[in-house]
Amino acid sequence: MPTGSNRLLIRSLLFAPANRVELLKKFPRQDADAFVIDLEDGTPESERAAARQQLSQTVQYLRRERLRGLLFVRTNASTSPHADADIEAALGADIDGLLIPKVGGASDVERGGAALTAAEQRGRQRPLILIGLIETVQGVMNVQSLTTADPHLAALAFGGEDYISDIGGRRTAEGLEVLYARSQVVAAAKAAGLAAIDQVVVDIRDDERFRQDAALGRSLGYDGKMCLLPRQVALANDAFSPTPDEIDRSRRLIAAYEAAGAQGRGVIEFEGRMIDPPLLGRARAVLEAASRGILDRR
Amino acid sequence: MPTGSNRLLIRSLLFAPANRVELLKKFPRQDADAFVIDLEDGTPESERAAARQQLSQTVQYLRRERLRGLLFVRTNASTSPHADADIEAALGADIDGLLIPKVGGASDVERGGAALTAAEQRGRQRPLILIGLIETVQGVMNVQSLTTADPHLAALAFGGEDYISDIGGRRTAEGLEVLYARSQVVAAAKAAGLAAIDQVVVDIRDDERFRQDAALGRSLGYDGKMCLLPRQVALANDAFSPTPDEIDRSRRLIAAYEAAGAQGRGVIEFEGRMIDPPLLGRARAVLEAASRGILDRR
Amino acid sequence: MPTGSNRLLIRSLLFAPANRVELLKKFPRQDADAFVIDLEDGTPESERAAARQQLSQTVQYLRRERLRGLLFVRTNASTSPHADADIEAALGADIDGLLIPKVGGASDVERGGAALTAAEQRGRQRPLILIGLIETVQGVMNVQSLTTADPHLAALAFGGEDYISDIGGRRTAEGLEVLYARSQVVAAAKAAGLAAIDQVVVDIRDDERFRQDAALGRSLGYDGKMCLLPRQVALANDAFSPTPDEIDRSRRLIAAYEAAGAQGRGVIEFEGRMIDPPLLGRARAVLEAASRGILDRR
Repeated sequence: MPTGSNRLLIRSLLFAPANRVELLKKFPRQDADAFVIDLEDGTPESERAAARQQLSQTVQYLRRERLRGLLFVRTNASTSPHADADIEAALGADIDGLLIPKVGGASDVERGGAALTAAEQRGRQRPLILIGLIETVQGVMNVQSLTTADPHLAALAFGGEDYISDIGGRRTAEGLEVLYARSQVVAAAKAAGLAAIDQVVVDIRDDERFRQDAALGRSLGYDGKMCLLPRQVALANDAFSPTPDEIDRSRRLIAAYEAAGAQGRGVIEFEGRMIDPPLLGRARAVLEAASRGILDRR
Repeated sequence: MPTGSNRLLIRSLLFAPANRVELLKKFPRQDADAFVIDLEDGTPESERAAARQQLSQTVQYLRRERLRGLLFVRTNASTSPHADADIEAALGADIDGLLIPKVGGASDVERGGAALTAAEQRGRQRPLILIGLIETVQGVMNVQSLTTADPHLAALAFGGEDYISDIGGRRTAEGLEVLYARSQVVAAAKAAGLAAIDQVVVDIRDDERFRQDAALGRSLGYDGKMCLLPRQVALANDAFSPTPDEIDRSRRLIAAYEAAGAQGRGVIEFEGRMIDPPLLGRARAVLEAASRGILDRR
Repeated sequence: MPTGSNRLLIRSLLFAPANRVELLKKFPRQDADAFVIDLEDGTPESERAAARQQLSQTVQYLRRERLRGLLFVRTNASTSPHADADIEAALGADIDGLLIPKVGGASDVERGGAALTAAEQRGRQRPLILIGLIETVQGVMNVQSLTTADPHLAALAFGGEDYISDIGGRRTAEGLEVLYARSQVVAAAKAAGLAAIDQVVVDIRDDERFRQDAALGRSLGYDGKMCLLPRQVALANDAFSPTPDEIDRSRRLIAAYEAAGAQGRGVIEFEGRMIDPPLLGRARAVLEAASRGILDRR
């Protein structure tokens, strides 16, 4: 959801297939910051038309059950015969926005943005948001230019699995094969003031793998992570929230810095490290995130 | 060689210096997917003119001996006094194309392409192919724009040794110093529909080093590797072919996915991982590569 | 300082806050290749105006004491109210140039260059030099275009701490979170013929950490490193100078190559590695750096 600083706060973005109503109905019990009803890859081709027709009813159910967190629909890519019908159905329901897959360039973002503008002109309770999923080589190469294509775009997500399929590579545990693309997507997002949501972890039984991957994503600057199952949501929320130690250390670092400033010293040592504005800025961001973590939950 | 899907299949690209005729004559006994007669760095400056004059005769010998795999000539860079004479000699022989070194921008590709066009207009048995070797900082910075400079360009190769010399760095076993450039070259190649051929390994006695480097290259999306010696060819062919385990696992994954689709479930679990289209796409690519590996050899 | 090959040779760039005169006065006893009087982040906001007024006197002291190495001033960024007064004060003193922080695009370089041009037209003993510090996401995204914005620009420095704060990431010991940005900055610098100076290490008591980080920076192509304390200067000078082993090995490699060339063989094996021009070029660069290390010190 847009925060005071006008940035989306999504630590966890939980997907479920649009044709699995029994899974979708569990959303209100789950602690994700945002949810995605997936009309695309999660739903078999033969089920997509039927799933689309159920969409409005499912969204009504979720709103009645007071879903916390933002609600998105992943529509099919613009090259699919489903694309137009998906967008129409999604924007006919009371959702917060669209997640557009396989974004390859500015025109994909413009097309999505135009649909949101049209829906807003027909009247909406809340502003609509676009998340662009960058998961092809084309998308990565064009990522810098597409971030400014439409003002509805509020976040980029990076799809490492699709990216590696598209480039013809192989996934490894270490993940060096996507470091370039993953770094480029988060840099383009942040340069444009957008949020950045990191890749899924398909090893759904391996919590340690998820934690390690989330830690790397966070170090790169990502704000949250796409989740395939409810069990990954808690791990993502944890990885993308400040730890008690970080909060404590940030408070002490700021206090030490302010004390030094009062004595006319700008750079001081704190527990063996030099404190300068970058470190200080991170400490302040930790305290801000910690307070938002409580305030921003509906 | 161009495949049904119009992509070059080069797992191994074996170099030998143009002045070492005894090495060139062994090409027909070797199992590389493609071969390079090297008029540039492999041949001492003082020998290059003489080596160029032998070229036509050597190519005739290799064709008589029924060389399997594509045959390229590496000419000297456009800044060299040898460049024009090299290209004329190479295109006067029955080769499959040119490997152009030190490609720094679109103009280098255009110049090579124009030479191939002229040769084709004079009449050729087969279409001519260009491979661009990206091995300078300029080339890496301009790589995206040069991929579309001429339709003969069918592959980019990444020269890590020259790149590190040009940037003034140092080679390490881990290879993080070239990860950015190596990632950018393969991404630019694939975005333009070109094949991508990975860097050499100069530790010619260290097979384990070659295997590790090839595995990383493959995970990044490279299709094959440049080889300095025949012993590296088998390692490269092995690294860039699907393993029996991968083929077996891919067959079972596709079967499980199709069975689930028949039951209306798009995303299913297979051996602890979520199957979705990216994973499925990789499984299908494995089976396609496995069949091409047999069919495409001459 | 500009060398025969017109490239700045800065292995170590030592910072001290402009308000800490007792630290600045120690510069002449230290062995750094270049020094920075820091009017920006190292000096508390409330002390900056006073520190600026002391600047001229401090520079006079350092010149009297025959400071070896280049002398720079880090001014405040163009968005700061201090910016103009800082530049005027700095260029009123006998310094070698400016280090501009938070460079985000070509206009920041142009503004700095224009100030140097104006100062040179008023008459200077020596030419003035600009170092651009790339430490924001904007700067990294625009780095290629800003390198050619003004001919005074002689080096780019990469600020990893600020970059990670700006992108909202976290620092790790391994440093993968900045590999993309750090690689892009050095590539842009070298493509434009500029020197490249690597990030600080804030763990000021951990020499091993500094050595490892310097080794990675050197492998990436950086020429030197920013230093926060005198104890880091010796480590940086060591890391960015050729080792006795490298010098010895380079001499032997060149001798072997020349002997082989005399026998008409271009590529030869030397201690289990193939020698070709890239390896040879690195060997020659080692010997050149070794001789410059002695000759270029004032």
